[in-house]
Amino acid sequence: MMNEDKHYRPIWLNDTNHSIVNIIDQRMLPHQFVVVDLKTPDDVIRAIKEMYVRGAPLIGVTAAYGVYLAVLNASNHDYQTIKIDCDRIKASRPTAVNLMWAVDVMLQAIQNSETKDQMIANALQKAKDIESMEVENCRKIGEFGSELIEKISQQKQGEPVNILTHCNAGWLACIEYGTATAPMYIAHDKGIPIHVWVDETRPLNQGARLTAWELGKHGISHTVITDNAGGHLMQHNMVDIVIVGTDRTTHTGDVANKIGTYLKALAAKDNHVPFYVALPSSTFDWSIQDGVHDIPIEVRDPNEVRYIQGLYNHQIVNILIPPENSPAANYAFDVTPARLVTGLITERGICQPNKNDILRLFPEKQ
Amino acid sequence: MMNEDKHYRPIWLNDTNHSIVNIIDQRMLPHQFVVVDLKTPDDVIRAIKEMYVRGAPLIGVTAAYGVYLAVLNASNHDYQTIKIDCDRIKASRPTAVNLMWAVDVMLQAIQNSETKDQMIANALQKAKDIESMEVENCRKIGEFGSELIEKISQQKQGEPVNILTHCNAGWLACIEYGTATAPMYIAHDKGIPIHVWVDETRPLNQGARLTAWELGKHGISHTVITDNAGGHLMQHNMVDIVIVGTDRTTHTGDVANKIGTYLKALAAKDNHVPFYVALPSSTFDWSIQDGVHDIPIEVRDPNEVRYIQGLYNHQIVNILIPPENSPAANYAFDVTPARLVTGLITERGICQPNKNDILRLFPEKQ
Repeated sequence: MMNEDKHYRPIWLNDTNHSIVNIIDQRMLPHQFVVVDLKTPDDVIRAIKEMYVRGAPLIGVTAAYGVYLAVLNASNHDYQTIKIDCDRIKASRPTAVNLMWAVDVMLQAIQNSETKDQMIANALQKAKDIESMEVENCRKIGEFGSELIEKISQQKQGEPVNILTHCNAGWLACIEYGTATAPMYIAHDKGIPIHVWVDETRPLNQGARLTAWELGKHGISHTVITDNAGGHLMQHNMVDIVIVGTDRTTHTGDVANKIGTYLKALAAKDNHVPFYVALPSSTFDWSIQDGVHDIPIEVRDPNEVRYIQGLYNHQIVNILIPPENSPAANYAFDVTPARLVTGLITERGICQPNKNDILRLFPEKQ
Repeated sequence: MMNEDKHYRPIWLNDTNHSIVNIIDQRMLPHQFVVVDLKTPDDVIRAIKEMYVRGAPLIGVTAAYGVYLAVLNASNHDYQTIKIDCDRIKASRPTAVNLMWAVDVMLQAIQNSETKDQMIANALQKAKDIESMEVENCRKIGEFGSELIEKISQQKQGEPVNILTHCNAGWLACIEYGTATAPMYIAHDKGIPIHVWVDETRPLNQGARLTAWELGKHGISHTVITDNAGGHLMQHNMVDIVIVGTDRTTHTGDVANKIGTYLKALAAKDNHVPFYVALPSSTFDWSIQDGVHDIPIEVRDPNEVRYIQGLYNHQIVNILIPPENSPAANYAFDVTPARLVTGLITERGICQPNKNDILRLFPEKQ
C-alpha cells in the first residue's frame, strides 16, 4: 500500500542483496518509519517475538522468509539441522496459528531438495508463494466484505457506514489490503462513504498507532477511541458493523484475537450490531474444537502494560503510568465464542461460525 | 486514609487560613503528591472541570466547599448573587448528580441567613456536614459490601477473593474508604485475603494511577490490567466479583459510570460473575427513568485520548500516541442497564437494581 508516494509492503526481499529480508519496524510507527534488515533466523525470531512485525498473516510470511534465511545460513542442506531453526521460529509466539502453518508449508517445500542451491531456490519460491497467496486472499476478503458494507450503505441511503475495528488487521499485518481493513479499503475505493472507529487497543496501541496511520494514508475518515468506548457507541446506534481480524479461529468458529475483542463482541450482540471476523484460511485451526479452553493465550511482559510508548519532544519515549511498585498482568489475546460472531469473511466467501458452514467453504478439510 | 504516615483526605479546610480549601491535585498522582489552594469559586470550577478532583462524592463535597468560598468572596450576603456562582459550579461537569445535589443542599442551608457572617458559618457547617455524611456513608457501604466478600471467601475456603474494579471509586474519589473500594478496605482490615484486578481505565488511567496507588498504600494485593483484559479473566474464573462506583444511578437501577463499565458488566453477565455497584444515596437520580437514553454523557477533550501522561526521566510528561492528524473522540461515561447489575451496595444495605427494591431502602423518596 502507499506511504509517501511509494508502494510498500511490510516485508520484502532486499532489492540488491538477496540474503537480506527487509521489514518495517512497526514498533516505531506512526512517529518514525524505520526499515530493518533481517539476515538470520535469530533476527527473524527477535522480530516476531518483540513485535517489529505482528499480525497473523505477516507473522506467517515473516516465518516463511525466516526458513529461507535458515537455509541460506546453513552450512549444508541437511534437513534435520534446518528443522531445528524452524522449530525455534515456530516457538517465537504461541497464539497465531499462521506461524506454525507457514513453517510447516516451508519445511515440506524444502524437504526433498537435492542440493543446497536447490533448497535455497525452493525456500525462496515458497516464501514468495505464501506472500502472494496472502495478498490474493486479502483482496478476495475485501471483495466479499465490501458487499456487506455496500448493503448497509444502501440501507442508510448513502450516509457514511460506521465500522468499528479493534487492533490492526490492516496491510501492515497482512502484506496488502489487510484482513479486517480489506473490506474498508475496497468499499472506500468503490466510492462508498465509510467512517471507521479505531479502538486504540491497549496495551501496545496497534489501533491508535497502526490502523489510524494506515487509514489516514489511504484517506479514509476515522476516529481513534479508547477500548472502553465501543459499548457506548453501539448503545447509541453509532456503529453499523464491527469487523476484526483473528490470530486463530477454530473450525468450530471460536475466534482468538487481540485482548478486548470478546468485550466488543458482547456489546455488538447486546445491541444487535453485526460482528464479522475477516480471515484467510491459513488462520483456521482445523484441530481444536473449543477455542475458549484450548487456544493457548500468550502472556507477555507486564511492562508493556506499565509503560506506554509515544512521541515527546520529537523523540519516541516510554512513560510509566502506575506506581513504580504496582504489578501488572499482560494477557495478549482473548477468545470470542462462536455464538457471538455473525459471520466469517474468508477468501472463499462469507460463512457462519460453525463447523458445517466452514467446511462447506473448505470441503477439502473434512 | 494514610499516605507516608500522615492521614489525608482528598479535600480539607486549610489548618491556618480558613479562607482556603486544600485539595490533592489528582492529575499528578501517583508520581507527584501536589496540594493545591482553592480560594474562589473559579478555582473550584477549574479544579472540577480539569479533574484536579474527580469521583462523584468528592465532586459533590468540592462543590459544597465551592459554595462556601462563593459566600466568603461575595461582597454581601445577597442570595441571588451567590446563586449565580452556584449555577456556574453546577455546570462544571454534567454527569455526576452529586454535584447538583450538593449545591442545592448548600443553597438551602444558606438561603435564610440574616448576616454575611451567619451565611459563612451556615455554609461552612453544611459543607462539613456533607463531607461527614459521605464518610459515614462510605463506611457503611464498606460494612455491607465486605459481607459479600466474606461470603465468597468462605466458599473459597480462604483462597484470596479476586475482585475486579474499574476507574477509581476509592477514598481519593470519596473522602474516606471510597465507594467501590470500601468493601475491599474493610474486608482486608478484617483479615480476609483479597486480590484486586485494577482496570487501568483509559483515557485518564484513574485505575492505574489512583486505585493502584491507594491499594498499594493500604497494603492490598493488586494487579493493574488493561481495560481489555477483564473479559478474558472472567472467562477463566479469575474474577469472583466485580465492584464499581457510579456517577449517577437512576432509581430504576441504570448505572452511569466511567466509560467501559458497561463492557465489564456484559462480561460479568456472560460468565455468571456477580456485578455490584457501590453508591451513597446522594448518587441516585430520583427523576430519570431510562438511564441509557436520559443521563447526559460528558464528551471531553479528544486530546485526553491522543496524549497520555506519565513519568519519563523523573518528570511528568504527555506523549502523543496516534498520528498527529488522526482525530479522536472522548466519551467519558457509559450507562450499564439495570438488567446487567446484580445489586447496589448503599449506606442502608444492599438492594436489587429496580425501583421497588431501591424504594424499599429509601421509602422517603416514594
